[in-house]
Amino acid sequence: MNNSIFKRQSGRYYDQLREIKITHNFTKNADSSVLIEMGNTKVLCNATILNKVPNFINEKQQGWITAEYSMIPSSTLQRNIREVILGEQSGRSKEIQRLIGRAIRSSVNLKKIHGKTIHIDCDVLNADGGTRCASITGGFIATYEAIKKLDYDTDDTIKNIIAAVSVGKLNNNVLLLDMDYSEDSSCEVDLNIVMNNKGDIIEIQGSSEKNQFSRNCLNKMLDLAFQGINQIINHNFK
Amino acid sequence: MNNSIFKRQSGRYYDQLREIKITHNFTKNADSSVLIEMGNTKVLCNATILNKVPNFINEKQQGWITAEYSMIPSSTLQRNIREVILGEQSGRSKEIQRLIGRAIRSSVNLKKIHGKTIHIDCDVLNADGGTRCASITGGFIATYEAIKKLDYDTDDTIKNIIAAVSVGKLNNNVLLLDMDYSEDSSCEVDLNIVMNNKGDIIEIQGSSEKNQFSRNCLNKMLDLAFQGINQIINHNFK
Amino acid sequence: MNNSIFKRQSGRYYDQLREIKITHNFTKNADSSVLIEMGNTKVLCNATILNKVPNFINEKQQGWITAEYSMIPSSTLQRNIREVILGEQSGRSKEIQRLIGRAIRSSVNLKKIHGKTIHIDCDVLNADGGTRCASITGGFIATYEAIKKLDYDTDDTIKNIIAAVSVGKLNNNVLLLDMDYSEDSSCEVDLNIVMNNKGDIIEIQGSSEKNQFSRNCLNKMLDLAFQGINQIINHNFK
Amino acid sequence: MNNSIFKRQSGRYYDQLREIKITHNFTKNADSSVLIEMGNTKVLCNATILNKVPNFINEKQQGWITAEYSMIPSSTLQRNIREVILGEQSGRSKEIQRLIGRAIRSSVNLKKIHGKTIHIDCDVLNADGGTRCASITGGFIATYEAIKKLDYDTDDTIKNIIAAVSVGKLNNNVLLLDMDYSEDSSCEVDLNIVMNNKGDIIEIQGSSEKNQFSRNCLNKMLDLAFQGINQIINHNFK
Amino acid sequence: MNNSIFKRQSGRYYDQLREIKITHNFTKNADSSVLIEMGNTKVLCNATILNKVPNFINEKQQGWITAEYSMIPSSTLQRNIREVILGEQSGRSKEIQRLIGRAIRSSVNLKKIHGKTIHIDCDVLNADGGTRCASITGGFIATYEAIKKLDYDTDDTIKNIIAAVSVGKLNNNVLLLDMDYSEDSSCEVDLNIVMNNKGDIIEIQGSSEKNQFSRNCLNKMLDLAFQGINQIINHNFK
Amino acid sequence: MNNSIFKRQSGRYYDQLREIKITHNFTKNADSSVLIEMGNTKVLCNATILNKVPNFINEKQQGWITAEYSMIPSSTLQRNIREVILGEQSGRSKEIQRLIGRAIRSSVNLKKIHGKTIHIDCDVLNADGGTRCASITGGFIATYEAIKKLDYDTDDTIKNIIAAVSVGKLNNNVLLLDMDYSEDSSCEVDLNIVMNNKGDIIEIQGSSEKNQFSRNCLNKMLDLAFQGINQIINHNFK
Repeated sequence: MNNSIFKRQSGRYYDQLREIKITHNFTKNADSSVLIEMGNTKVLCNATILNKVPNFINEKQQGWITAEYSMIPSSTLQRNIREVILGEQSGRSKEIQRLIGRAIRSSVNLKKIHGKTIHIDCDVLNADGGTRCASITGGFIATYEAIKKLDYDTDDTIKNIIAAVSVGKLNNNVLLLDMDYSEDSSCEVDLNIVMNNKGDIIEIQGSSEKNQFSRNCLNKMLDLAFQGINQIINHNFK
Repeated sequence: MNNSIFKRQSGRYYDQLREIKITHNFTKNADSSVLIEMGNTKVLCNATILNKVPNFINEKQQGWITAEYSMIPSSTLQRNIREVILGEQSGRSKEIQRLIGRAIRSSVNLKKIHGKTIHIDCDVLNADGGTRCASITGGFIATYEAIKKLDYDTDDTIKNIIAAVSVGKLNNNVLLLDMDYSEDSSCEVDLNIVMNNKGDIIEIQGSSEKNQFSRNCLNKMLDLAFQGINQIINHNFK
Repeated sequence: MNNSIFKRQSGRYYDQLREIKITHNFTKNADSSVLIEMGNTKVLCNATILNKVPNFINEKQQGWITAEYSMIPSSTLQRNIREVILGEQSGRSKEIQRLIGRAIRSSVNLKKIHGKTIHIDCDVLNADGGTRCASITGGFIATYEAIKKLDYDTDDTIKNIIAAVSVGKLNNNVLLLDMDYSEDSSCEVDLNIVMNNKGDIIEIQGSSEKNQFSRNCLNKMLDLAFQGINQIINHNFK
Repeated sequence: MNNSIFKRQSGRYYDQLREIKITHNFTKNADSSVLIEMGNTKVLCNATILNKVPNFINEKQQGWITAEYSMIPSSTLQRNIREVILGEQSGRSKEIQRLIGRAIRSSVNLKKIHGKTIHIDCDVLNADGGTRCASITGGFIATYEAIKKLDYDTDDTIKNIIAAVSVGKLNNNVLLLDMDYSEDSSCEVDLNIVMNNKGDIIEIQGSSEKNQFSRNCLNKMLDLAFQGINQIINHNFK
Repeated sequence: MNNSIFKRQSGRYYDQLREIKITHNFTKNADSSVLIEMGNTKVLCNATILNKVPNFINEKQQGWITAEYSMIPSSTLQRNIREVILGEQSGRSKEIQRLIGRAIRSSVNLKKIHGKTIHIDCDVLNADGGTRCASITGGFIATYEAIKKLDYDTDDTIKNIIAAVSVGKLNNNVLLLDMDYSEDSSCEVDLNIVMNNKGDIIEIQGSSEKNQFSRNCLNKMLDLAFQGINQIINHNFK
Repeated sequence: MNNSIFKRQSGRYYDQLREIKITHNFTKNADSSVLIEMGNTKVLCNATILNKVPNFINEKQQGWITAEYSMIPSSTLQRNIREVILGEQSGRSKEIQRLIGRAIRSSVNLKKIHGKTIHIDCDVLNADGGTRCASITGGFIATYEAIKKLDYDTDDTIKNIIAAVSVGKLNNNVLLLDMDYSEDSSCEVDLNIVMNNKGDIIEIQGSSEKNQFSRNCLNKMLDLAFQGINQIINHNFK
């Protein structure tokens, strides 16, 4: 099928992002606080600055950035059980927060924040697909603001301006940028990409539980991802 | 000391509430969603309606209401560790959510919601004192809206319009209505009250780790609490 | 209904305590050991003295008192599952032990036990209502004896001689002092009070899941509670 | 060294049991309740009768007996941390309760209690050595009484009248019957035996972390154990 | 730097796999058992066939494949703590086993194994880099054999013959196929790829915590990965 | 029944061991690695040497030996759930690893390995009865090799050359040496013995859930055990 004539249920074009909304200083006690909305996906990304680093970093002359990810129970259509009731974080939560931490660390010169830890908490308030990408995009903004609050020179400290987006492939070969929950549930291939503003790759995670995909398809998905990431970065850092 | 001449750090009078703000429909996926703000205390109170009741209710001809309470890690001045990382809810969280559930259940005629469970999730986004009272006040509004969404007659189903507030006593005998975090940390006696709009008591929890208090003092605190609760109810259900 | 003509199933008057029995030195290894019986409620309250204080106390010039509460599985009519099997303490246990700790701390001048922790373990051997009150009453006696064992002057170290009791209100408005399990299960309002021998309040916890109660009713319940607490204190510290 | 001239710290002879005390009906809510004291070792052995059997028994035409063992925190000279706080039972507790269950099951004709489970809870109130043996001895009495309460014929249902005792070997080759805590800590070989009143073996657990022991030594220890078990059974079932 | 002149510490060329060794039927009780060795990396991949499917699959007309991944404590140079002692699986283990399960499921026509679950256990006996790739490669062989044991037609049931391999990029731009532990620790970009024998992609996970990488670099890494995967598949399914 | 005419299902005589196979250096990263096979029972016994001792050993002038035991999920005929999924080690695992540790410690002069801990991991790869005995026998060989790797004099450091074996009694009074899983499941009495090469006892654990056994029977079982242990030791240390 031809991408350009495909109608998404939401009325969006295949290559159209959902509306982005960034609210700064959403809460008071965090060192920086960003509420990011990608359509109905709503994630509170708060940064806390600690004046210490984890033990395994101590001997290195650098700082550290780490992330945690959680969904509040009422964030999903069918209420999910609070993880503390289950006694441990799900594999999915752990996998996502490892990804968020890695992606944001790769965007910062950790030598420049020597002795500091920036702890990013991504708490999903409403989930409509793409929460991991929104967490990375919002978490990066919170990190950026935490670095400004620390009076560091951002040009010097930030290596890459980054954002993340999902791209999917339907079984009719239509590609979709920035999938919502219903699209995510029905696609054949699911790719999450973190890129900088030059199109270099920070993280790529592509998974196709239903069907393998070709190298050619991968390349088209990466093109579409870059187009979306470029728009997101321009929106956030104009 | 005379209450009327006492200056609170925030500029409030001893008997003055913080600014109340209620945002309805804050998130999409919950059945009703209320963001309550009492000054800088900010709690997301979401209701989920389930078409079943817990086992211990099954044989009774009634419905059920239950609550969970949690603080996101970045809600406090010093970041608190995510409870799932510790492996279990703190005693404080469990105690508060049992209180929220009891208070809201007492306000509803459970026979009228036969076969339904209303699950209230109170997720504290920013904590500046009085989070349990804000959770009860906000959780009750979310319950009220869930009952409307179910198309039940609220006059028939709601037994009490309720709200909660804290009252403290400083060591100079000054009483304080609706304490913020710094007031709460320094007071001698700490009373949390849930009342209906007629001044009847639903729950009373008074604790004085530093000093005992007299029956006379208790009565003055209850007078002050009712004045505050009356204002809160008028604000929310005008 | 008139309180004075009401017949309790046990034959007690509405304002009559159950028989109190205190066995000192019930076990050997604890620093002080009190088996308290209020009718068929039987709680072993043992104190252990530690020559250190928790970290959060270290910088303050004082000691600490803390409590733990647990029911042995066979203490209830229907055997309860051992908490360690469930993997964590119930919310109820945590709430009760926090209450016991707060109440006993408020009765002692912690400056005078500088550098010491008194750890009170309340293990319920048989439960017939009022276990939290019996734990506070018995735990206070164990604390009193631990302080004597430490050769501290009790007049100087003990700020308040305390005890705890429950008062209930039935739906026919009859009030009941010191409820047993069947009374506790059927009452409308349930009040647990900790007072000193002068009638000052240390803790008040009133809860009415079934029906709100008036300020006037609260006052009558407090009168009845004080009468009971006075008798308990006279029995224990004659 | 010659056994017969050895002086134990407690004044006992090498082959002398501690004073045994059995209190029946120590608590009300359990189906049978036995407080067993062997010197200062004090274990509450309560039986609960359930009208169902575990799943793995369902298809067999029989009943079941199971046991749990726990020490209250203040039962030991140095207070032990409550197992629920650690989040799981210690290996030692699990090992002991498996032993208690096996030993008592072997003494009962499980076919005769078809459809019933007898749940034995052994809660150690004071520990001075030999708590596992006291738990087996006391747990068996509680089982015996539960079977009587069920109106089963004990002659028919009980296969073996059993008891348990410890025997130790010091590094001077002296053997000791029924060791207290200080003897248990210093002995070289530690043997726990469950026997019936004819001297047949139900369980034998011998462990020698410090030194191996000969077949000849094992036989002498078994002789001594039988002498002790015989006395215990005669005391309990005269 | 030029790939072709680079010397690896192990003596391998940049595009050379480690020695592969597959031992079939390594253990008896599993339904199929494969010990895979890639150099010193040694993973036991065992399949268990269950005649039921998880609840969430029940209504669909298909079977299921799931995987678990664990390292024995002595598999790493510095002994790792047994996960059960820590009380939960690490985020890394959960992430890897989700990947193994997804990859193998994508290779099988689940409709054809209707009503069956194939449970793949990947227990790492010795870890020298690439354990997740070896687990996928070995787990797929075990799955293949389990399907033969079930007497299903493999041509019909297996959609893709798959294998996995890692490719790394050093900071001097040299690419490395099938990295061992020391190479993995020092590389800048780390890519794990699952492909079928035609070079189609099943999973791609690329991560660059130290430095972003270009689209061009990604393509070269994918070329190298396919060359390796082709050799592995030819070795295993000649 | 007469032992000598009894036919075991496997074809073995009543007093015949299964085939023993010891593979040294089975894995690379452990300090010593022994794969022991007793028939189809297959246990990987790996030793890790640590240059520190546990806290409770610190003040004593000695080293320490400890053990962990676990079965991989696919080691049993019916797959067992991974212990980490259940959240804790089973009572059986804890009991067995305590036994392994005690037995091996008793065989070594701990003074001679002052400051070192030898950590033995016994991971059961295939279970066909007798895994605890195989773990002790294999764990002892791994310990022996770890001590050689440390360049200690084994004659000086090893106090006892040990091995373990099981002996069972069927309900027809036939005794069986070194039982496999089906024999273990059907026997009446189950004895596990650890002995040195002179027939002295290190550990004896005899359990008879189905029927008591006589002193005479115990002696015959011990004779048979020693014959088996002697053969095992001769095989391993010829």
